[in-house]
Amino acid sequence: MERITATYFIETAFAPAKAAEVLAGEQSSGTFVAVPGETEELKQRFAARVESVEALETVDTPAIPGATSATGKYHRAIVKVSWSIENFGYNLPVLISTLQGNLYEIKQFTGLKLMEIDLPVSFGNHYSGPAFGIEGCRRLTNVNDRPLIGTIIKPSIGLSVEQTAGIVKTLAEAGIDFIKDDELLSSSANSNFNDRVDAVMKVINAHADATGKKVMYAFNLSGEVDEMLHRYDKIVQSGGTCAMVSINSVGLSAVKKIGDQKQLAIHGHRNGWGMLTRHPLLGIDFKAYQKLWRLAGVDQLHVNGIQNKFWESDDSVVRSIEACLAPMYHHNTVLPVVSSGQWGGQAFETYRRTKTVDLLYMAGGGIMAHPMGAAAGVTALQQAWKAAVDGLSLEAAAKQYPGFKKSVEKFGSK
Amino acid sequence: MERITATYFIETAFAPAKAAEVLAGEQSSGTFVAVPGETEELKQRFAARVESVEALETVDTPAIPGATSATGKYHRAIVKVSWSIENFGYNLPVLISTLQGNLYEIKQFTGLKLMEIDLPVSFGNHYSGPAFGIEGCRRLTNVNDRPLIGTIIKPSIGLSVEQTAGIVKTLAEAGIDFIKDDELLSSSANSNFNDRVDAVMKVINAHADATGKKVMYAFNLSGEVDEMLHRYDKIVQSGGTCAMVSINSVGLSAVKKIGDQKQLAIHGHRNGWGMLTRHPLLGIDFKAYQKLWRLAGVDQLHVNGIQNKFWESDDSVVRSIEACLAPMYHHNTVLPVVSSGQWGGQAFETYRRTKTVDLLYMAGGGIMAHPMGAAAGVTALQQAWKAAVDGLSLEAAAKQYPGFKKSVEKFGSK
Repeated sequence: MERITATYFIETAFAPAKAAEVLAGEQSSGTFVAVPGETEELKQRFAARVESVEALETVDTPAIPGATSATGKYHRAIVKVSWSIENFGYNLPVLISTLQGNLYEIKQFTGLKLMEIDLPVSFGNHYSGPAFGIEGCRRLTNVNDRPLIGTIIKPSIGLSVEQTAGIVKTLAEAGIDFIKDDELLSSSANSNFNDRVDAVMKVINAHADATGKKVMYAFNLSGEVDEMLHRYDKIVQSGGTCAMVSINSVGLSAVKKIGDQKQLAIHGHRNGWGMLTRHPLLGIDFKAYQKLWRLAGVDQLHVNGIQNKFWESDDSVVRSIEACLAPMYHHNTVLPVVSSGQWGGQAFETYRRTKTVDLLYMAGGGIMAHPMGAAAGVTALQQAWKAAVDGLSLEAAAKQYPGFKKSVEKFGSK
Repeated sequence: MERITATYFIETAFAPAKAAEVLAGEQSSGTFVAVPGETEELKQRFAARVESVEALETVDTPAIPGATSATGKYHRAIVKVSWSIENFGYNLPVLISTLQGNLYEIKQFTGLKLMEIDLPVSFGNHYSGPAFGIEGCRRLTNVNDRPLIGTIIKPSIGLSVEQTAGIVKTLAEAGIDFIKDDELLSSSANSNFNDRVDAVMKVINAHADATGKKVMYAFNLSGEVDEMLHRYDKIVQSGGTCAMVSINSVGLSAVKKIGDQKQLAIHGHRNGWGMLTRHPLLGIDFKAYQKLWRLAGVDQLHVNGIQNKFWESDDSVVRSIEACLAPMYHHNTVLPVVSSGQWGGQAFETYRRTKTVDLLYMAGGGIMAHPMGAAAGVTALQQAWKAAVDGLSLEAAAKQYPGFKKSVEKFGSK
């Protein structure tokens, strides 16, 4: 019978092997006194199994404050635990309740992070994964051999529908590939969702008719289930190609429902993610997290960016990009969305470390605030990426490309 | 115009007032360079506003490891920030993306927890809240003037449908008010969801026909949206009165969809909650959290229990019970679900500190492993609560009630 294996980074005042057994017991057949019906046969079939325990360092201070150890020592370890697929079948919420669930409540742990999930072969057949993924998003935008260049409508909130459409026109004429709503905006007092779709798609469709290039716009349809489905239909009917969802806020079941529609590329915005991962010994690692959303059908997933304005290290961003680009079954591969303080200067380090152009590379002010205008901003980003792939340094690229040189002068010291 | 106010507990290497401005900017009209269209008028209408900053202690070590301060000092504070309802209208996922969202990513914070949300009057009219709540659950179970006594089918996973129905029969005859699936079980290889509903409801309906008492069974329907709706209908058609949802795993939008059906009481299981709250300076406090789920229509919500087997302090559990019992608009009030290692002995401290019997009091082994059998286990819990309300001590209650005395002898040292 197929099994699902979860890898955890734990910290415990107990012997790690003992703590791992508590974990396995709590998440399968555990209760605080033995009860009738808990036979050996049942345990064999449905009990979680500790597969390995790899001891790491011992520390004097618990990772999560408040917990105390009689010995004053806290042991860290990597533990692997497995469950039979018979426990839940193909049910992502119950999978999560089993692999995470009450584990964070267990006082034997002063730290616990879900690092990786190994899913069985049959998951690849049951779930169809991203309907578009990298190849589909390239096809929809007609962009090959370089990252898709994207931007976010700013200010995040407050622009009228007409102002938004005006910015979209500027950006489309500038040669942008992708534009998105901010996650703060879905339907505001002066930017009704349907009105925004009408106004924006009028611009995008006219531009496509004139040039053959259809800009992908990710409309933030996050909301209640029926509302999202109506908005989804509105985008489809208007000739749009993409819908954005704040995946953590909307939640796994409703995102899966949206992914199942398969007519639009799904832009998965991970806002709220810091809460789930920022502490090194609490929550879930991106490597495990991204698998769940790929199964739910997300086509594009945020990974932050090199030299970003947030807390995350470059190493962590690189690992996230690699996680997204790792194949998963025969499914389409999810497109990593690089964003946060990007202006093109980071293309060099991003390419050096990942050797990929399969990215949606997002720049905000880096485009709209370019000294020579938005078109020059988009071109500068394309130039930066061409230079990076050609093996040029940032300095050499600035010499070769005057437009990019202006970006370096304006944004290079940020 | 109505505003929504969020209260945060923050830690920052910067001046707290400065950090609060960063927070407000990031979650409304912030971008890293000024862009066209960002007018003063727009900012006035849509910008988040720092309402107050209350400085607390300064510490030498950041709450979240990895962050460093040039001064070596980290300042803690309570800050209140407000947004106009015009920014998002009535949209819980976008509310969450705004009040939490990327905030946890901001490097200016070495700790940030959302402590409270103050919602405007109109939310109370737009959302209808729990369809049943405390009064509805009392009506469905015909229990007045004492806590509903409940239990969880254990072992959590692995029992056949017939075994489960057999345990339900024993428990129904024992006088139980409420039974639930474990969060690890929705539909397993040997306990198909629909088959379990058939078998369990056959027992419950027969018992109701014979005695007039219908046991409330919370079937765990957690899964994909359509699957949950089908399961919901199955429960309704079979005469069931309650559906359980793992709220964090399923997510806000899909739980709202289930709550909107209004034919079954919704048992909101908060497994995964520890990840969101266990760190004192990361995530969200229960006081804010429970409001969201009440708006989504959850009728019963887990709060852990006094002297529980998990990490949570009694003080925290008491605060959670009080949060649930606080009125919210004209809505039905959500029923706090007390569980984890409960056997009746905690009734005294629970009542002393909360002065309420508006609880669903869950005991697992405390019922099934009672030395005189399940019926005596249920009776012992009722006795414990009667004694607690009557002002007896545990010791006095054990003298007065022989059944409860057996509980004390078996579970009292745990």
